[in-house]
Amino acid sequence: MTVVKSTLPDDARRVAGDALQQTLVDLLGLSLVGKQAHWSIVGPRFRSIHLQLDEVVDSARAFSDTVAERAAAIGVAPDGRPETIAASFSLGGPKVGWVRDSEVVQVIVDALESAIRRLRERIETTEKADPVTQDLLIAITADLEKQRWMFDAENYPHEEGDEG
Amino acid sequence: MTVVKSTLPDDARRVAGDALQQTLVDLLGLSLVGKQAHWSIVGPRFRSIHLQLDEVVDSARAFSDTVAERAAAIGVAPDGRPETIAASFSLGGPKVGWVRDSEVVQVIVDALESAIRRLRERIETTEKADPVTQDLLIAITADLEKQRWMFDAENYPHEEGDEG
Amino acid sequence: MTVVKSTLPDDARRVAGDALQQTLVDLLGLSLVGKQAHWSIVGPRFRSIHLQLDEVVDSARAFSDTVAERAAAIGVAPDGRPETIAASFSLGGPKVGWVRDSEVVQVIVDALESAIRRLRERIETTEKADPVTQDLLIAITADLEKQRWMFDAENYPHEEGDEG
Amino acid sequence: MTVVKSTLPDDARRVAGDALQQTLVDLLGLSLVGKQAHWSIVGPRFRSIHLQLDEVVDSARAFSDTVAERAAAIGVAPDGRPETIAASFSLGGPKVGWVRDSEVVQVIVDALESAIRRLRERIETTEKADPVTQDLLIAITADLEKQRWMFDAENYPHEEGDEG
Amino acid sequence: MTVVKSTLPDDARRVAGDALQQTLVDLLGLSLVGKQAHWSIVGPRFRSIHLQLDEVVDSARAFSDTVAERAAAIGVAPDGRPETIAASFSLGGPKVGWVRDSEVVQVIVDALESAIRRLRERIETTEKADPVTQDLLIAITADLEKQRWMFDAENYPHEEGDEG
Amino acid sequence: MTVVKSTLPDDARRVAGDALQQTLVDLLGLSLVGKQAHWSIVGPRFRSIHLQLDEVVDSARAFSDTVAERAAAIGVAPDGRPETIAASFSLGGPKVGWVRDSEVVQVIVDALESAIRRLRERIETTEKADPVTQDLLIAITADLEKQRWMFDAENYPHEEGDEG
Amino acid sequence: MTVVKSTLPDDARRVAGDALQQTLVDLLGLSLVGKQAHWSIVGPRFRSIHLQLDEVVDSARAFSDTVAERAAAIGVAPDGRPETIAASFSLGGPKVGWVRDSEVVQVIVDALESAIRRLRERIETTEKADPVTQDLLIAITADLEKQRWMFDAENYPHEEGDEG
Amino acid sequence: MTVVKSTLPDDARRVAGDALQQTLVDLLGLSLVGKQAHWSIVGPRFRSIHLQLDEVVDSARAFSDTVAERAAAIGVAPDGRPETIAASFSLGGPKVGWVRDSEVVQVIVDALESAIRRLRERIETTEKADPVTQDLLIAITADLEKQRWMFDAENYPHEEGDEG
Amino acid sequence: MTVVKSTLPDDARRVAGDALQQTLVDLLGLSLVGKQAHWSIVGPRFRSIHLQLDEVVDSARAFSDTVAERAAAIGVAPDGRPETIAASFSLGGPKVGWVRDSEVVQVIVDALESAIRRLRERIETTEKADPVTQDLLIAITADLEKQRWMFDAENYPHEEGDEG
Amino acid sequence: MTVVKSTLPDDARRVAGDALQQTLVDLLGLSLVGKQAHWSIVGPRFRSIHLQLDEVVDSARAFSDTVAERAAAIGVAPDGRPETIAASFSLGGPKVGWVRDSEVVQVIVDALESAIRRLRERIETTEKADPVTQDLLIAITADLEKQRWMFDAENYPHEEGDEG
Amino acid sequence: MTVVKSTLPDDARRVAGDALQQTLVDLLGLSLVGKQAHWSIVGPRFRSIHLQLDEVVDSARAFSDTVAERAAAIGVAPDGRPETIAASFSLGGPKVGWVRDSEVVQVIVDALESAIRRLRERIETTEKADPVTQDLLIAITADLEKQRWMFDAENYPHEEGDEG
Amino acid sequence: MTVVKSTLPDDARRVAGDALQQTLVDLLGLSLVGKQAHWSIVGPRFRSIHLQLDEVVDSARAFSDTVAERAAAIGVAPDGRPETIAASFSLGGPKVGWVRDSEVVQVIVDALESAIRRLRERIETTEKADPVTQDLLIAITADLEKQRWMFDAENYPHEEGDEG
Repeated sequence: MTVVKSTLPDDARRVAGDALQQTLVDLLGLSLVGKQAHWSIVGPRFRSIHLQLDEVVDSARAFSDTVAERAAAIGVAPDGRPETIAASFSLGGPKVGWVRDSEVVQVIVDALESAIRRLRERIETTEKADPVTQDLLIAITADLEKQRWMFDAENYPHEEGDEG
Repeated sequence: MTVVKSTLPDDARRVAGDALQQTLVDLLGLSLVGKQAHWSIVGPRFRSIHLQLDEVVDSARAFSDTVAERAAAIGVAPDGRPETIAASFSLGGPKVGWVRDSEVVQVIVDALESAIRRLRERIETTEKADPVTQDLLIAITADLEKQRWMFDAENYPHEEGDEG
Repeated sequence: MTVVKSTLPDDARRVAGDALQQTLVDLLGLSLVGKQAHWSIVGPRFRSIHLQLDEVVDSARAFSDTVAERAAAIGVAPDGRPETIAASFSLGGPKVGWVRDSEVVQVIVDALESAIRRLRERIETTEKADPVTQDLLIAITADLEKQRWMFDAENYPHEEGDEG
Repeated sequence: MTVVKSTLPDDARRVAGDALQQTLVDLLGLSLVGKQAHWSIVGPRFRSIHLQLDEVVDSARAFSDTVAERAAAIGVAPDGRPETIAASFSLGGPKVGWVRDSEVVQVIVDALESAIRRLRERIETTEKADPVTQDLLIAITADLEKQRWMFDAENYPHEEGDEG
Repeated sequence: MTVVKSTLPDDARRVAGDALQQTLVDLLGLSLVGKQAHWSIVGPRFRSIHLQLDEVVDSARAFSDTVAERAAAIGVAPDGRPETIAASFSLGGPKVGWVRDSEVVQVIVDALESAIRRLRERIETTEKADPVTQDLLIAITADLEKQRWMFDAENYPHEEGDEG
Repeated sequence: MTVVKSTLPDDARRVAGDALQQTLVDLLGLSLVGKQAHWSIVGPRFRSIHLQLDEVVDSARAFSDTVAERAAAIGVAPDGRPETIAASFSLGGPKVGWVRDSEVVQVIVDALESAIRRLRERIETTEKADPVTQDLLIAITADLEKQRWMFDAENYPHEEGDEG
Repeated sequence: MTVVKSTLPDDARRVAGDALQQTLVDLLGLSLVGKQAHWSIVGPRFRSIHLQLDEVVDSARAFSDTVAERAAAIGVAPDGRPETIAASFSLGGPKVGWVRDSEVVQVIVDALESAIRRLRERIETTEKADPVTQDLLIAITADLEKQRWMFDAENYPHEEGDEG
Repeated sequence: MTVVKSTLPDDARRVAGDALQQTLVDLLGLSLVGKQAHWSIVGPRFRSIHLQLDEVVDSARAFSDTVAERAAAIGVAPDGRPETIAASFSLGGPKVGWVRDSEVVQVIVDALESAIRRLRERIETTEKADPVTQDLLIAITADLEKQRWMFDAENYPHEEGDEG
Repeated sequence: MTVVKSTLPDDARRVAGDALQQTLVDLLGLSLVGKQAHWSIVGPRFRSIHLQLDEVVDSARAFSDTVAERAAAIGVAPDGRPETIAASFSLGGPKVGWVRDSEVVQVIVDALESAIRRLRERIETTEKADPVTQDLLIAITADLEKQRWMFDAENYPHEEGDEG
Repeated sequence: MTVVKSTLPDDARRVAGDALQQTLVDLLGLSLVGKQAHWSIVGPRFRSIHLQLDEVVDSARAFSDTVAERAAAIGVAPDGRPETIAASFSLGGPKVGWVRDSEVVQVIVDALESAIRRLRERIETTEKADPVTQDLLIAITADLEKQRWMFDAENYPHEEGDEG
Repeated sequence: MTVVKSTLPDDARRVAGDALQQTLVDLLGLSLVGKQAHWSIVGPRFRSIHLQLDEVVDSARAFSDTVAERAAAIGVAPDGRPETIAASFSLGGPKVGWVRDSEVVQVIVDALESAIRRLRERIETTEKADPVTQDLLIAITADLEKQRWMFDAENYPHEEGDEG
Repeated sequence: MTVVKSTLPDDARRVAGDALQQTLVDLLGLSLVGKQAHWSIVGPRFRSIHLQLDEVVDSARAFSDTVAERAAAIGVAPDGRPETIAASFSLGGPKVGWVRDSEVVQVIVDALESAIRRLRERIETTEKADPVTQDLLIAITADLEKQRWMFDAENYPHEEGDEG
């Protein structure tokens, strides 16, 4: 049943809707694993990374709202229920229990890199279908790439002999 | 391995830790189903309920952070990963797709009532174990009961003949 | 007719509801006599007490709202109508017309002491019935006791020979 | 005893003082019945009217302070004690217990209309006596008329078949 | 006479200038009909829609300024005079006099849909001519589509039997 | 059909309603020509006048809202539709295209002078009909006369030989 | 030479201009003597009166600006030069050197009473000439009367036996 | 001499008063050693711990004010003089001179653990005597336990081989 | 009579006191002539200079308060009464009536230059007497020299052929 | 050595990196020449242009940070050292010493036009390489084109006979 | 061991370091006795002095931080430990228990006078050693002298017969 | 050509002008190398130093504006053009490309030490020439010495075996 009408033709709506739904799951999952890391990190860089993780979470939460409302705006009901996230989220995250700071940094760099790679594919597929959606995905990519650099710079010299 | 030491004896720590972990899952799940409802609601009360749901989400997010940090503060690593929420969350939520406003209100009243009932049990079990944790659970209950009232008052005259 | 359902059993609801209703009347009455004193005070400490009274009024107004909404939250419709306040309010207040500053201070100290004594009784009766309500009454008591101290300290050396 | 001197001649002071005293009672009473309605309303428009009522209360409280201080400024001690309000308030208000939203709207429209009619009479009687007081009554009327309109517009189509 | 020079070649300037001028008229007209509806709406959802309409007006006013200054920035003098709006505005609006809430919602949904359809055409025509202008039109479309969804969700179940 | 009732007798309502409707058109038109001048001005005083014009526009927009809501408050549905403004607005404005700064100043001085002259007439006609409306018109006149002075002072030495 | 044109006829302009010029001198002088008292006060109420005096000064400064700009707005160049104030100011003020708190209070009450008496005369003379100017004078009177009451209430029991 | 009267019976007053006085000394001392560490820390984590220490100091200062005013509120004059702190403070602190970052972290963890252990004892002793005081001590404990966790997490892997 | 004691020896107090009293008169006078110019300026730079003058006035008012309180702080009662300013102020100012913008600029540059020259002399005489007072005079000089530059830059090319 | 990894393929990284590095130099240079003009401008439009230049500088500084962090985010170390700017900056700027206002306007218009022309070329070259970078360059162009218009409008009638 | 290097030669560093260390102890002690007075004051001027004391405390705390960080900045580790303050603080303070308002005022005047006398000596000794440190000491002196005046003015007429 | 007149004699102007011009170059250069380090830093302390560097940049930018406007205020046109900075800046900075965090800290400590040494010389040379300029240089030195300490404390234990 079409409850909310769309301003897009059916094909474009399907392409844009799929891209938004997948992005929504990535962002909601990212907000959960970011908070998990925020709470379970230990080590001499605790405070610094603890604060930096909240910036990832804030960003992921804000964009998830924009993405879901964009989906609604083109007539696609978004799906952000817990079971959907658990079933579809594939970016990884910290293991259960206390996690050392350097390990947290690596886990977040990896999750962000996966998210960015998937976003860049969706930027291409939505170009024709809906430039408005594409524009939003570009803005998210720009933000996540900046966050990824900041964790990657923190990660230098890449784990062997780190801080020692 | 005990990484973060506790200021509580082992027994008290286990009781308080369990109560906090269960509350964390309830709150994170509530924040997700609250947002899902925020995005998928339709009907003549759309705007009013759309805004009210964000107050539930803001509240659930803020308390989930306090709860998880309280767990860490007593030496218990909290677990808020997506798979944990999906496996343990039991408060219910809206079905997938567009949902009518009156149905949303009922779903949220039900979820809040379950959450409150479970919190009241934990208030009892933590009284001896840790009055600090109990105090936090009392504060959360007070807030959720107020939110429940507001949705329940909105729900009158209880669904038959609603708005007509 | 039970319009808004309660999350408390009937007995507990009655005890907590009574305590909240009595507190509501005390606070609304306190906000009215506080304002009355704010407007009718004269004397060399006019400005200082004039401002201090508005802090009592702000506090009483804010707490009366929390108390009434707590009553509603447990399914008890609060009653703050003018006739109810006039019939039930027993804390006293300034006489009609201009009132000297030292007399105002004494009147407010007396009203706050009565309010505190009555609140402390309700803290005991609500302990079993509803710890959430008890917690709210404790917070109100803490605030009113602080305000009482400030007026009492102002009252030194207790009226004989005061300022002269 | 004349404690605070007046800058008005005696006749003018009596006329303006009476108008201010009557307006003070109307506004304090309005703030109490507005809060009463704010707490006891139920029905599908709960949230919307619940918020709107607080605007009436805020407005009535702010104006009651201005009115009482204007009375003091012309040497008339205002009287806003609980017993005075109970004895003199005549604008009506909601009955005790839960009240349906449409009934609340009607009650508030009626109360505001009475308040406005009485204010307009005082605007005439104070024109000669004290243009400063008249100016204040005009400002209050403007605000209450705007509030009345907003509740009346909400009231359409006037109760029969409302929302159905 | 070319007073303000352009940084675009003549052809591109003409295409981008036309798109901006048409968008300016749409937005200025939208801000006027949005205010008209804001003032003349009646019915049980009065307050909720009254507030929502101001968000449309604020958005339309802010974008109209950006659009007109963009036109000036590429050397095209914008035309937002009353007679131009009256002659060129084609999105519709509420009829004169009081208008029922459900009718207002439908009128605004229709106006926003027309505006969006016209914007999407201009997004295509400006892609080659001026990506800066295109980017601005995409941002306006994203905002109006979100606003349209919110009114459309409010409009469900599409007028027959609405609220009854 | 009388949808929103009036607190004024019919005659007074007609006089006040006419004054408000004419003022509404003047203010909405003024906000449009002010923006038009804001966008199309050129010359060495560009920045200074560009900013000053936005103060006229902000003022006109805010007062137009107050005026229209005052009309509604006395039971008169205001009419601010584009076609009404185009048909009734008579204060003049800048010609289409780029306009030199000194010419802009003269145009705005003329428009404000017409608006003020018309307002002063309405102040007289509304004195008996509705002092609340009169008070609002006085406030608007005060503001527009201040703005007029500021542009007139800017205009000295009255165009011949100006700046050179 | 008429540099800034007036929107008032010549007679009205002269009456309103005189009233505004005299009010300007009163307010500028009041702001100077208020500051003088603020700096030179001593005694046990130092802090309380020191702060209260700055409220008189802020008020006098803000109104002097409004009054002078109102004069300019009706084409009358205001005169607030030091020599003009010294020559025309007649409201009195504290003597040179340190001044006891009770004496300061009396001096300010006297100055405010003179200012109010003079304003009330001007309210009468400007009623026909310019209701806009009259409205401004009424607003100033309301404020100064409130300030006078607050110092007068502070002054009780009128100097004999004061504080001792 | 009993200057400020108490609303508590004598026994309860003594118990609550002792608990508050001891807590006051702990908090004032904590604020001093926190600042000392803030100024004298050196090492690669300088900036991060330098900022984190100010959060401990801000918290200790704010709670010391609440604790002392609570003591006054129950009629017990608090004692926070320098000599009292020096004689009674027992939580330890950094040695004089520059101190390495890892050593600072250990010193603060130790001081917070002592403070918490002492607070938990007082929570028990005040339960009967004064639930208002107990509630305040619970709130302080919750905050200090959170701060302790944050420094302890920072301390991992517990000093041997730390950062190298 | 020495009411407020000084922390300076008598000689130093006299030197510093004289410097502060003279500076007070200069600053109060400057604030009056700055406002006078603010109100009476005409010409094409009206708005720009009108705003710039208020920065001089704000600065002069703030510094006059600091200077007078510094005098009081060293036991010298300051004198800022209207008659003192009229008798002692020597920096000049605009003539009565409307004043052209370029003439205003010249008058303010001249007044500021005189003020600065006098301040530089006092900086020398207070160096030995009171370095605290000297520091304050240096800060005032820095600010006035910056303001002077800004009016002087505005004044280029120095009046002959200016703007033409 | 590749320290920070890129999420772009090598070719795309080189193209986007070059575009960002060149833009960085343009923006840093622009912020320096903008400040230079801000400090050295003289003439009757001093204040107006002095303030407008700071808007260019704020904009250039904010964008230079975004551009450099975007370069880092794609794994390219940006180069904003003084010697690099001096060697590569080619947009021109004011000569040393005082500069007349009209000359400043012309210099800034020229610098902005060069910057815009160079940005439009990079918008084309980055379209395929990296839409995220392209989006950023479009936003910078939009802002600089608006600033250019504002200085160009100020520049009319283009220097001959300007202001005279 | 020299951990943090100094930018001053050894002799200058010793002189400046001593002056800063002594000032640090004075300010930390002042903040403690100020708070002690804030909590234990009684009498009719309670509220006024209670607030004024917090301004002394805020000032002393802020300056103590600046002074300690200045010491660190010149390579001298500051010493603000509780035992150091108790051993070195010599400015006096209120006795234990409740203290009458007039006695508090006298105690604070005395403490501030001692602090100022000691600061003036250090201003002289640091002039050659380090003008940066001297500048900071001058700023502290200016603030404490202002605070001293305000308490001294409050103290008039110097205790005999004061308030009765 | 002397465009802006000076309030200093020629000799003093030359000395103060040279000191200000050299300081301007140091501060502008510092802001550029600070940003360069902000963008190119890598390593485990990335986030902490990245943020700390922006404080140096903010400080350098704010002071460069004050210094340049002070030069203008004494009639000396400042020179902050890119080529001047490149030719005159001598404080050093990070090499091109990614730079490890510990190396960044060392580079900034060195640059700040050079800047401070040069400022201390200018403090001496300007003492006679212009105490206003000297005061500004003292304030800059105080700030840079504090920043140097913070980086130096971070630098401990001085690079050999740092963090390992």
